[in-house]
Parts: sequence; C-alpha cells; structure tokens
Amino acid sequence: MKTDFFGNIERVAHEGPDSINPLAFRHYDPNEEVMGKRMEDHLRFAACYWHNFCWPGGDPFGGQTFERPWFGDTMENAYLKADVAFDMFSILGVPYYCFHDADVRPEGADFAENTRNLNTIVDYFAEKQTQTGVKLLWGTANLFSNRRYMAGAATNPDPDVFAFAAATVKTCIDATHRLGGENYVLWGGREGYETLLNTDMGRELDQLGRFLNLVVEYKHNIGFSGTILIEPKPQEPTKHQYDYDVATVYGFLKRYGLENEVRVNIEQGHAILAGHSFEHELATANALGIFGSIDMNRNDYQSGWDTDQFPNNVPEMALAYYHVLRGGGFTTGGTNFDAKLRRQSLDPEDLLMAHIGGMDCCARGLKAAAAMIEDGVLSEFVDARYEGWNGEAAQQMLAGNMGLEAIAARVEAENINPSPRSGRQEFLENVVNRYV
Amino acid sequence: MKTDFFGNIERVAHEGPDSINPLAFRHYDPNEEVMGKRMEDHLRFAACYWHNFCWPGGDPFGGQTFERPWFGDTMENAYLKADVAFDMFSILGVPYYCFHDADVRPEGADFAENTRNLNTIVDYFAEKQTQTGVKLLWGTANLFSNRRYMAGAATNPDPDVFAFAAATVKTCIDATHRLGGENYVLWGGREGYETLLNTDMGRELDQLGRFLNLVVEYKHNIGFSGTILIEPKPQEPTKHQYDYDVATVYGFLKRYGLENEVRVNIEQGHAILAGHSFEHELATANALGIFGSIDMNRNDYQSGWDTDQFPNNVPEMALAYYHVLRGGGFTTGGTNFDAKLRRQSLDPEDLLMAHIGGMDCCARGLKAAAAMIEDGVLSEFVDARYEGWNGEAAQQMLAGNMGLEAIAARVEAENINPSPRSGRQEFLENVVNRYV
Amino acid sequence: MKTDFFGNIERVAHEGPDSINPLAFRHYDPNEEVMGKRMEDHLRFAACYWHNFCWPGGDPFGGQTFERPWFGDTMENAYLKADVAFDMFSILGVPYYCFHDADVRPEGADFAENTRNLNTIVDYFAEKQTQTGVKLLWGTANLFSNRRYMAGAATNPDPDVFAFAAATVKTCIDATHRLGGENYVLWGGREGYETLLNTDMGRELDQLGRFLNLVVEYKHNIGFSGTILIEPKPQEPTKHQYDYDVATVYGFLKRYGLENEVRVNIEQGHAILAGHSFEHELATANALGIFGSIDMNRNDYQSGWDTDQFPNNVPEMALAYYHVLRGGGFTTGGTNFDAKLRRQSLDPEDLLMAHIGGMDCCARGLKAAAAMIEDGVLSEFVDARYEGWNGEAAQQMLAGNMGLEAIAARVEAENINPSPRSGRQEFLENVVNRYV
Amino acid sequence: MKTDFFGNIERVAHEGPDSINPLAFRHYDPNEEVMGKRMEDHLRFAACYWHNFCWPGGDPFGGQTFERPWFGDTMENAYLKADVAFDMFSILGVPYYCFHDADVRPEGADFAENTRNLNTIVDYFAEKQTQTGVKLLWGTANLFSNRRYMAGAATNPDPDVFAFAAATVKTCIDATHRLGGENYVLWGGREGYETLLNTDMGRELDQLGRFLNLVVEYKHNIGFSGTILIEPKPQEPTKHQYDYDVATVYGFLKRYGLENEVRVNIEQGHAILAGHSFEHELATANALGIFGSIDMNRNDYQSGWDTDQFPNNVPEMALAYYHVLRGGGFTTGGTNFDAKLRRQSLDPEDLLMAHIGGMDCCARGLKAAAAMIEDGVLSEFVDARYEGWNGEAAQQMLAGNMGLEAIAARVEAENINPSPRSGRQEFLENVVNRYV
Repeated sequence: MKTDFFGNIERVAHEGPDSINPLAFRHYDPNEEVMGKRMEDHLRFAACYWHNFCWPGGDPFGGQTFERPWFGDTMENAYLKADVAFDMFSILGVPYYCFHDADVRPEGADFAENTRNLNTIVDYFAEKQTQTGVKLLWGTANLFSNRRYMAGAATNPDPDVFAFAAATVKTCIDATHRLGGENYVLWGGREGYETLLNTDMGRELDQLGRFLNLVVEYKHNIGFSGTILIEPKPQEPTKHQYDYDVATVYGFLKRYGLENEVRVNIEQGHAILAGHSFEHELATANALGIFGSIDMNRNDYQSGWDTDQFPNNVPEMALAYYHVLRGGGFTTGGTNFDAKLRRQSLDPEDLLMAHIGGMDCCARGLKAAAAMIEDGVLSEFVDARYEGWNGEAAQQMLAGNMGLEAIAARVEAENINPSPRSGRQEFLENVVNRYV
Repeated sequence: MKTDFFGNIERVAHEGPDSINPLAFRHYDPNEEVMGKRMEDHLRFAACYWHNFCWPGGDPFGGQTFERPWFGDTMENAYLKADVAFDMFSILGVPYYCFHDADVRPEGADFAENTRNLNTIVDYFAEKQTQTGVKLLWGTANLFSNRRYMAGAATNPDPDVFAFAAATVKTCIDATHRLGGENYVLWGGREGYETLLNTDMGRELDQLGRFLNLVVEYKHNIGFSGTILIEPKPQEPTKHQYDYDVATVYGFLKRYGLENEVRVNIEQGHAILAGHSFEHELATANALGIFGSIDMNRNDYQSGWDTDQFPNNVPEMALAYYHVLRGGGFTTGGTNFDAKLRRQSLDPEDLLMAHIGGMDCCARGLKAAAAMIEDGVLSEFVDARYEGWNGEAAQQMLAGNMGLEAIAARVEAENINPSPRSGRQEFLENVVNRYV
Repeated sequence: MKTDFFGNIERVAHEGPDSINPLAFRHYDPNEEVMGKRMEDHLRFAACYWHNFCWPGGDPFGGQTFERPWFGDTMENAYLKADVAFDMFSILGVPYYCFHDADVRPEGADFAENTRNLNTIVDYFAEKQTQTGVKLLWGTANLFSNRRYMAGAATNPDPDVFAFAAATVKTCIDATHRLGGENYVLWGGREGYETLLNTDMGRELDQLGRFLNLVVEYKHNIGFSGTILIEPKPQEPTKHQYDYDVATVYGFLKRYGLENEVRVNIEQGHAILAGHSFEHELATANALGIFGSIDMNRNDYQSGWDTDQFPNNVPEMALAYYHVLRGGGFTTGGTNFDAKLRRQSLDPEDLLMAHIGGMDCCARGLKAAAAMIEDGVLSEFVDARYEGWNGEAAQQMLAGNMGLEAIAARVEAENINPSPRSGRQEFLENVVNRYV
Repeated sequence: MKTDFFGNIERVAHEGPDSINPLAFRHYDPNEEVMGKRMEDHLRFAACYWHNFCWPGGDPFGGQTFERPWFGDTMENAYLKADVAFDMFSILGVPYYCFHDADVRPEGADFAENTRNLNTIVDYFAEKQTQTGVKLLWGTANLFSNRRYMAGAATNPDPDVFAFAAATVKTCIDATHRLGGENYVLWGGREGYETLLNTDMGRELDQLGRFLNLVVEYKHNIGFSGTILIEPKPQEPTKHQYDYDVATVYGFLKRYGLENEVRVNIEQGHAILAGHSFEHELATANALGIFGSIDMNRNDYQSGWDTDQFPNNVPEMALAYYHVLRGGGFTTGGTNFDAKLRRQSLDPEDLLMAHIGGMDCCARGLKAAAAMIEDGVLSEFVDARYEGWNGEAAQQMLAGNMGLEAIAARVEAENINPSPRSGRQEFLENVVNRYV
C-alpha cells in the first residue's frame, strides 16, 4: 500500500452479514469452505486493469469524468497506475488481475517501442506480483482501440495489420508467460464487419482461423501451459463480430481444428447482448466441452450496448455458479470483473465499494449454488425426467442401431402414443428460491 | 381452377410497371431473362400450405378471424383445402408449394391413422400436381403443434416421443420422395428448452444429432436425392431453440459429422429474431458452404415475435438476392413465402394480392441484384480492398508458413506500421441505391 | 372446497422459511405485521380467472396442452369453472380475484345473450363470494378476442363496433359494481394499429378519448366508487397500442381531461416490453399522480412477446414494492397475478405451486421494501443529494421568479462553476443487497 | 471555397438518375417542382456541425480515426473549422446548418469565457452566412458532454448546474436569434437517470418543466420568432431520458402548460430506439399538433445504440415524407442530417458522398410521397374505411350526446352485431410499392 490514492483504507475484512460498513465484506470470506474447498479457490477473483485504471469515464455523448493522477500516456504515469492498481488488488484481497498491453504501457511510435514499453512495465509487474502475492489470471492484447485496427486485426483487409496484430499478440503471450499468467484471452472486438458491402466474410474467417492457429502453435512452442480463451461477443463496437456467442465460437473452432485447444471466456453482458441468458452460455460451453472462465459483470437487460456494470442480482448469479460448479468448477479460469464504475461514481471509494458488492454477491451466489448441488433436488428432478432413455429400446435408438424404418415399424407395432408429463417449471423456480 | 373460392379470378398476368391492377404482376415476368436464365428458374417461387390454408387468423389474444369453408378436421375438408390450394398456386403461377403433414391431413388417433390419412392425401396431391404442373419444393413434418411435442420431438425427455417423431419423419420423407419433392426441411420449433432448470442440454443435443443422422441415413437408403435442410430460428415458441442461427447450425452439423449432408433454409424473419440481417445469414451460409433455400417473408424489426409478413422492402430484398446469386443461385432450393396474411386481411383476394406483391418485390430485388453483379462495382471494390493479401509475404502468413515469432521479427525488421484506408461504406450504399 | 379438481389439498399454510413443502408458504403470512399493517392488507393479492381457468395452453405454434374438465363453451362448464376457481382462491387464501366477461360466461349469439349469460354467472359469483369471503379486485371487458374487435374496439373504423364495445363495458361495470369490485380496468389490446397505412391516428385517439369519458361518466351516474384503471402495454397483439406506457397514458388522460379520474394498472411484463423497468413505471405513475394497481407477473427480458410468467426474482420485486410503499401503498389497488403457467405445467398442483411461489416472493419483496423504508438509508441519500435546492436562490429559480437573463447575470457575477459529486450508484446497489 | 480540405471539388450538380458520378446528385434537383413547390423549399436540408466537424471517429472501444487539421481546442482551429464547414455547406448546396455552442467555440474556463468565445465565433458565422447564403436552421446548447452535466442539466440535483445550464441556453438562444435561426432545439441527453436509487423523479420533472418555461419566456422577451423544439430520445447516454418519445413529450408539455409553445424535432434513430417506426412518431406528432422538424438519419434496427447513419432506405423515407406532407409540410422546420460517417470513412470525399446519398434518397422519398398524396389512393382508402363515422348515430356518440346506457339500449334494440371488413394491409403495401 504505497500510494495515497485510497487514503488510509486498509485491507477489506469480512465482517459478516449484519455489517453495514460499506468497506467490509458481508458474505465473502476467502477461507470459508464451500463443498470442501476454500471460497477463494472456488471463485478465483480477478480485477481488471482497463476499466478501473484506464477508462476516463467517457461515453458516446460525454468526455472524461474521472480525474486520476496517473492519466496521461507517459511511463511515469504507467508506474503510478501500476502502484495504485496493486494497492487496490491488495485492499480488496483479490488473488488475480487481468490486463491488455495497451492498458499498462504508453503507446509507442511503432511496434518495437510498444514492445520495449511493455517489457519494461512487465518487469515492474513481476516485482509487484512478488511483493503483493497477486497473480495474473490472464493477459490479452488490445487489438481494437488503435486506429490501425479500425477494420479488424486478424480479419483486416490489409495483411500488414494482420502481421502487426500477430506480432503484438506474440509479445503479449510472452508477457503473460513471464508473469505466470494462467490463461491468455482473445477478444475480437473488431473481428467482424460494419457492412457486408465491403466485406469478404469467407476470407476473413480463414484469416481468423489462421491467426488463432498461430497463437496455439506459439503457445506450445514456448511452453506456455495456460489456456487460450476466446471471449464471445455479438456486436459492439462492430455491427457484427465473428465470435458472436459460445455456439458460434464452437463451430469456428471445429472448422479450424481448434476445439481441443481453445476454450471460452464468457461474459454475462455479452451473453445478454447475444440474446442469451448467462447460464445458457455456461450450459452451452459445458455441453460442448469448451468452458474456460467468466467475466462476472452484468449488462442492463434494456440497454442495447455493453453497460459492463458490477453484478448485483444474487438469484441470477447463483444460477451462473450452479452451471460453473456442475461443470466441475474453474480450473485455470476464474471470476474476472470486467466491470466499470458508472461514470458518475467519481471517488476512489466507489472503486472499492463496487468490487466489494460484486464479490459479496458472488459469494452469496456460490454458496447458494453449492447448496443446490449438495441437496440435489434439481439434478434429481432432471435425471428422473430423462430416465426413460435408460431403457433398452431407447438406448438402441440413441446408439444408432435402429434406423427410421425400424423405429417406425416399432411405433406402429406397439402403437406408441406418448402422453406428456408436467415440466414443473414453477416448482423448480420455487426450489431455487429456497436457496437465494 | 375447380373451386369457386377465388370467384372468377384468372391466372395473374404480367402487365408491366405501369399497371395499377392489384391482381397483376408489375415486375414478375417468369419468362424474362436475367443473367441468362428465366426469372422463374432463378426465383423458384413456392407458396406454403400452412399459413395460407390452415391458419385461422388467431394470435395470442384473439381467435379465428378467417372463415374458410374447409376449416374442420375431416378428410372431406382436406380435399376441399387441397383443391383451393392448387387453385391458388395456379392462379399465381408459382411453380412450387410446400407443406407439413399436419397441414394436409386430419389428425388421426394414432401414428397408423396419421400415416393412412397422409398417404391418402398424398395420392390426391400427386394427381393435383399432374393436373396443374405445380411441383413440391419441400415437405416437412409438424413436430411442434401437437401436445405430445410440447417438450420437444427429437430432444424430448421421453424416448417414445423421439420414436413417434422419427416414425413421423419417415412417413413425411416418404411422402416428399413420392411427390418428387426437391428438398426435405426440418424446423425444430420445440427442439430447445423453456427453462434450463429441467433440461440436460448435452443429452438433448446428442439426441438431436442422432435424429438428424437417422434422417440422412434414411434419405440415402431410399434413394431420395433431395436436399436435407435445417431451418434455423432462435426462439419462439420455446425460450431457446438449438438451431439458433446459421453459425450455430454449422457447429452442430460439424459436431455430428453432417456438414456435407445438410444445408440450411434461411428465413428473413428468423434471422432478424436472432439479431442478424437476412444478408448476414445468407453470407454466413455461403462462407460455410451450407446454403440451401430461403423463406422470403419479413419480420417487423420492432416486434419481438415471428410476424411472418409478406416481404415489401425492395432494397433489402435486393441485397438478399445479391448474396444468393453470389453463391451461385439456387440449386434444389427456392423462394418460399412462409408468410401469412395479417389477420384483418379477410378476403380471398387478400391471399392473392399478398403473394403478388411479394413476388413483384422479389422480381425487383432479383433484377437489381443481377445488375449489381453484372456491373461489378461492388465486387471490384471488395477485391481491391483485400488485394494486399495477394502479396508473397501475406500468402506465406495465410498458408501457415510463418509462425508468430517470424512474423514479429518481420514486423520489427521492416518497421511495419500500417495506415488505414477508408472503408467507403456510404459510397457503397449509394452504389446500391443506383439499382434499387 | 366443492370440486375434486385439486384432490384433497387443504388451504395452504404458512410453515416458515425452512419448510420444503411445495404446498406451503415459506414467507407469506397474511397476519404478519409490516410497517404497522397486516401483510394481507398490504399486498391485497388477487388471482386471475383467464390464464388460470380459460387458457388452454396454446401458443402461436401449438394448441391445447391443458385438459380441464370445464373446457367447452357451455353454461354448465361455466359453473364448474367457477367452482374450481373459487376452490383455488380459497386454497391459496388470496383475498381477491379478477375476471373478464368473456372468461366467465359462454359467448352468446348477440349482445343481449352475452348480457344474460354474464348476469347469470354474476349471480353465481355473488353467492360464491359470500360463501368464500373472496372479493373482486377488478372486473373488465374482453374487447380483443372476438373477431369483431380485430381492428379495435373504441378505435374501430366501424362505429357499430364502438357501440357494441361501449354497451359491453356498461354490462361489465354493472357486474363489477354489483359484485362490490374495487376497481374497473380497461386494457386496450386492440386499441392501436397494425399498419399506419390504413389508420387515422388522430381520429382513433379522439374515439378512445370519448370512450373513456363515457366510462367515467357512467361510473359516476351509477355511483360506482371503484377506481377506473387503464393498463398500459406497448404492443402485442397489435403493432402499436395507444396506451403504450405510463407516460403515454398520462398524456392521453391530460388531452381528454381525465387525469384526475383514471389511474393505471401497471404490469411488469408490459413495462419490460415498453423498454422500461417495472420500478420506472411505478415511479413515473407516482410522480404523475396516477398510480393505481399492479399486475405482478414477469416477462422474460429476452423474449419479445408477453410471457406472463409468475414472478420469481426477489431483488426486483423488492424494488417494485419499494416504489409502491413510497407512494403510500395500495388504496383500491392490489397485487394481481396476471400470470400463466408454462404450457408444459399440466397438473392442478402446478397452478397452486406457481401462485405459492409468486406470493412468497411478493412477501419477501414487501418485507425487504419495508425494511429499506424504515431504515431510511436510501431516502436520506436522495434527500441529501438534492439538498442544494433548498437554498434561497435555488427556490427562486424553481418558483419562476428569475428569468434566463437574471440567472445568466448571477452565474456570471458569482462565477458559478459547479463541481460534480459522486452519484454512488454501486454503493446504493450494495445497500439494497443488504435487504434482499 | 477558401480552404483546400475538399481539394478542387466544385459545387455538386444534379446530373440525373443515370449518372454514376459519386459526387453528383441523381435525384435531388433543388429547383424541381413537387406539388407546386421547389424541392429545396420542401426539404429544407441542413447539415450538422458536430458529427461532421467535431467528432473524431471514436466509439466506446476505440479512439480517433479521423485526422482533421482543425482538431484541437483553440480559437484558431475554430475559425478553420468554420471555413471548412461553410465550404462543405456550399459544395453540397444545403441551404441550412445546425450547431451546438460547444461544437463551434473552444471550451472556456468559466461561463463568461464560454460566452465570449461563442460570441466571437458567432460574429464569424454571421459573415460566413452572408458570404455563402447558408442559413441557420437551428441552434442548440450542448448540455451533456462536459462533466458538470454528468447528472443532468435542468434535472441536476445541484441547482448551480441548473443555473449554469440556464445561463448557457440564454447565450445560445441569443446566438441563434442573432444568426436568424429558424428554430431553437433542446435535446435532453442527460435529463434522465442512471439509477432510480439516487433519483427523485417528480422533483426532476418539475425542474425540467421550469427550465422549459424559462426558455419559452425568454424567447418571447427577446422577440425570437423561431420555434422551440424538443428532441425526444428514450435512452443513451442515460439509462432513461425524460423526453422518451413524442407521446411522452406531449404529456410533459401538457403538464407544464407548454403544448402550444413547443414542438418536436423527431429523429428516425431515436424513434427506433424507443420501439417506434419513424412514421409512427411523425403521425403521433401530427395527431397531437406538435410536429416541428426532423433529423433524417437512420439507426441500424439491430444495434441497440444510436448509430446515426446516413439514411439510405427510400421506401422508409417515402413513408416519412408522406406523413410530413400530410401534416402540411415543414414550416420553420427542415430535414437535418444528424448523421455521422462510419468511423472507417476517413476521407473528405466520404463526407460529401454521405450527404449526397442522403439528399438523393430524401429527394426520391419526397417525390414518392408527393405522388402518393396526389394520386390519393391511400387517403381515399382510409377515408372510406372510417366513413361509417359520418352517420348520425355515430356522430352523436362521438360528440358525447349518448351515454353508455343509451348506447347499450340502442345496441340491444337494433341488435347491432358488426361484421369485420378486411383491413387490406398487403394491398396497401403493394400500393406504396408502386411509388418507391
């Protein structure tokens, strides 16, 4: 705790559910055991660098609202920013953080300068990690803010942009590797199109497939053992992004032979924008075997852009963690808050309170999810609903041992005429409400 | 023209763009040549049975508005309905029609009776086809209306429902084959879920994958040479349908080894509901090699349910046909109007005028699309935009002959620092407006 | 408890939060005091007739799923339906119910027969009310299902439809008055348009204004002391409904001089479809002085049609009741469940469990809202945020005692240059999470 | 034509529909007569200052893409910007322009400096107007970008912000008056809330009502004869804006006694975001008597934020102008392009081509609308549809001369039992397609 940005605020403590201290945890206790594991080890919280320390508070109709002493694109500010960031990580007690290259280093005149700047600050991060014990959940490259990427990075019509992006990703994987990062994320915010009129979609998909294969090959070459993650999002900034949602990413991975190499980092806000619930995306990733990590922010259901708010609806979060736990919980992944303060939340305490509230809600969600799993009412109901499939004839059909003709003959011979059974949705929703 | 439903209305003629006769074509002339092919052979129009002859005009807040003499679930009515339907096909001069089993035959007490009823009416259809020259674009099974399917057909938790559905599809493929149908369509309106709380998604996807494999195997067994088509739709009636959109269907086909066997029937309305433009879905299907056929209706952009309106916006339709033509045009597919009258459009003439307007708009769209292709302004722009990729180094990157390390070395060595070029979206939109 | 529809299920009891009995209340205890009033008197629950007893389970892609012994449009079935309905009201212990004319009586051949049928069943309801103690929260006329209303009731281009609708409303107000109903509701499901091309909006608004004035005049004529309520909804079934949302209804009432005579019945689902949160609509109605009653169902945020689900998200419901209580709580209004079972929830118990879950969530929401009000943290924050307006100069501006010129002079003279203060959104969201 | 920004491009000429010159009009000929009036006088085109000359091309995920020589907040740049702007107005031949104060002058340290800067540049604008003949359609104050307005201007919890905003509006009305502006616009981009938790809606509405009354009083005081316009928008930047849509603004104006003083400036993009079609908002404004002016840009129907694209769909634009003309056409209002280039459209020509395309589409839309009106098919259909209301009994009902009781008696006595007639939507859509 070296800077004075957060004043004399100490590490946030767990004070229990009756506390009204806005700078205390009411529910998150890292050491509390949930299903035989420490809560900290379940949730694997990370705070993000970009929204917390780089975003000035602007929106499409207004400029900067935050006044931070480290704003300004110099190396000196980069150090100060890092100091404050690690202060915040320590105060909150989050075990992890995440960053883009462009968040942490000044923009250079060219690739070489970017790389030098990045490496310099990575050295500093390495020290900070050692001092604080905070670890890197994932690193990533910002391939969308600079005007060179305005028409995409990997999918750019200009191969020099592909090359610049590829080189940049190399440096970011190197940085992630060096800092012991547990994952490397690709979010293709400009990998898409503004208008089909100037776009060759087939070509762009092939470029993107090649790019991702390069990443995977490089990971193996250098012995990086972290997971490569794609973060789906349907649109914004572009009209359409190729990594639309989990199911689309799965098809893409299959097309380019990467379904065993790459997993997904799922964000609630991006799920919502794609027309899905968060738990849908989680369940889909589990079903397809590509679940990796989550961004636990929320989107306003009724705002059509990425609102990236801190999460606050415990019943929804419980369902999310229910699917995470049903899939076996996190391995290299974790719970990152890709969330930003509302632009009117000007003060340093707002940064802390926002995270504290989010972490507490996650803790409540996790505990509710664990209770639902331990009690088994939901999973028993589901198993019972499908139990007919355990029968001999059903298994034969499913195994492909009966063709349509044989099935039709059996339906006619046995005069199969199925009666529906209640799906009990309201009952099951009531069951969930016992826990949240 | 045997029934008196349409009074003494004769076959609709092409009278040219100045006609104000509401029962004449202004733009659709089947024999007009477009890009060296008759317009009829390009567009391959089909009218649908269900909306035109079975739907009573109800919506979630109101009942029947249409009073048709053939309503009532008897075989006698089924014959009358067929007579009127083929009257309409002939008056309009559409070369094709499409139907579900449940549209054309009375509901029986069990599978065997359904099959008998279907086969009886299929005999009658065969006669009508011979008499009128109207052909079958595609057949399909209604696996969503009957209460037995309320929790899905292939994805039902009860294997007996899977069996009943499989048997039903067999009879419908048989019917389609017998009638010379050129495609067989599966729309999975209940293949999805209402709530994840009672759903095992992985299991259901496997059931659906098996089901589709059964269909493909059976097609080959009986020598049906038509195309198997899946029709994507994101939701409605269910909360989530597994065949969400083209990209999702592609991933599903890859997962179950069917990407070379099955194609998609794309509907504008379903595209819209999935958050995509129609041309996006068409371009995606082209890029992924699974384009099959289209349902040319439109959805109100601002109504959140499937409005299935007749199409009327020529500029949008021109872009759709532009992608159809760019992909090589229809082979077995065609332009089906899966559209229904507004429920206040009570009269027989409304049925005709709705199709005439739709067909005229398609004709205008097709001609505009053909002109855009023949002039080449758009495609030349696109080719030029990507021409950098024809360079040696770019081709090496794309071919996978350079890894990230080599690319980074080259970026640094050559100090690659790309400058963006204008994407010219407004110019391209203006170009399109020359044609529409 | 006369029918055997619900078997031997007894009146639902409050068993406390630890109960796992699906037919018991865990949180709703009618006699528990909240802010000095019995919970029952706060919440004033009503169950609806239409979804529970008339809806067959159909959706736009499927037909009947529920098999109820009273289905079929005869007077005998109407009596049986009434018996089961009052059984359910009694089992649940809801103090109120609501109905449309068309829900409760067979459809007659003409207006006179409709009236006779209605009056007959109203006699029966009067008896049932006496026997059970259940009261009528509100009555209403169904002016949207019958095909005569397909183009609107009051806003129909045919004045005979206006007359038929007006006459029907008269009979329904009479029925409501006779049964001691505490409100009379108008939902204008067809008061809108499908296409502007055939619509004269100004004329239709004037028709609707006249219609509503007729209703208000008649209410006073007969001495009906209940409240007249309009229920806003933006669209569905029509493309656009004139009673779009609360703010729109307010403008309409002002235009036709009715803002002191008519209030709003706000439904969460309709709020969502209009792009608003439920609490927005409640806060707006409070601010404009027209709050009346609520329909406490929920809409799926991601389904674009009216899903009318039983409510289950306690944090959202707490915010709704917070605004209800801040506005002084219900007077003649109450909490009606305009909710329907999912169509797969086939069994009688599903009807009960759905309501029990909804009522329990309301109870939790109410208690949380009351606690938020009693603790005052939120309201104190809000008051402090605006306290600058209590200053002299501020009051002068607000009172209209300073014009733009004077204000500008003061700004310049005093060099007013305001600094923003944090809006503390995340902190406030955390505060809410202390209570839910 | 003083600057060299647009090179040697001359004033854009009308070359007729066959021209493929991207810098020529194909349809817009200012002198062509349409319904007895010059096209220029019908359309009254304006170009906007902000998107064309101030916006750097940023979006929420990326920074500046445009490199304009006048970027940088100095008075020198302000002059250069003005020169280029008037160059563009002259090249395009738009008779009008529009601006915010903050677009045209450097931001000062306080109100006084802002005012001085504004007045200086207004002097310069006055000269430029004289030199070029370009006029001011409307002026407006930017009360949303500066951080002081982050919580609203008129609706701010801090009365000093209200005062600062009021003083600023005074200077902007003064500027507009001096430059002969024909309207003054208020867009309340921050007049709304981010969260109801920190908001007192009733108080904020009263503040906004007072503010607007101050504006109207001041206009009369100084003898400004232009129209005061409110521009509705539902949300973005805030979660909810009070001027949600036309109907909401109407209710607000009625509440604060301003319905005869203030009109609306309607934008297609804002209509879309509120869930309405553009023509809906126009028809509503006509019906309520508050139509003023339009912003003729379009929003992507499927992007949930304000995309502000140049318009390009002629059929939709024809329907918009149909309503403008049906309401009598513009008086002080006009057709402003509140549209911005896509951020990839980097070049000066892109600015020109975007406007040329938009103006051409408007010309086509206007001519189609005029033809629809002159032929009268649509209006005759509508009049005939409602003709029953011309009858004696209908008029009595509408005039309020019959109460519900009398109407019911007549319905019963005459056994009124109306039969619906076809609404002919598809026919009418086909009619529109004759013209577009």
